[in-house]
Amino acid sequence: MDYVTIIGLAAAALGGLSLFPQLLKVLKTKSTKDLSIGMFIIFCISIFLWLFYGILSNDAPIIIANFFGFIEAVIILFFKIKYK
Amino acid sequence: MDYVTIIGLAAAALGGLSLFPQLLKVLKTKSTKDLSIGMFIIFCISIFLWLFYGILSNDAPIIIANFFGFIEAVIILFFKIKYK
Repeated sequence: MDYVTIIGLAAAALGGLSLFPQLLKVLKTKSTKDLSIGMFIIFCISIFLWLFYGILSNDAPIIIANFFGFIEAVIILFFKIKYK
Repeated sequence: MDYVTIIGLAAAALGGLSLFPQLLKVLKTKSTKDLSIGMFIIFCISIFLWLFYGILSNDAPIIIANFFGFIEAVIILFFKIKYK
């Protein structure tokens, strides 16, 4: 595995992880006042398109990052709408 | 330009835009209580690695998305630390 792929996989792993502390915070506090609904709507669409791009380009780091990121982003968006 | 590149560019454009409403919200309300500092720390590292990956892979959509995303994420992280 070349070092470019390793960097991509590290970026992908952290990308998939990044929304997790936000998701835990939302589940714990049940408060989403300071979260921008615009951010999470655009984020969900962007992540979905990245996932599609990754599949079409057969690019594993992009597929992995955006598969987990999409699930987390959709759950946070759900709670943003529920708790607003 | 093939349709895969167009999807990537759309994903990149939306990715760069997604943090913008959150940044505006933070600047307007000066409140970052509900934002997870863990999310934005991991997000900044992930975006920086994606930018590096994009440069090494010579992948324009990834470079564009993560260049703007990194700037926005760092500013939001700054305000999260300032207003916590």
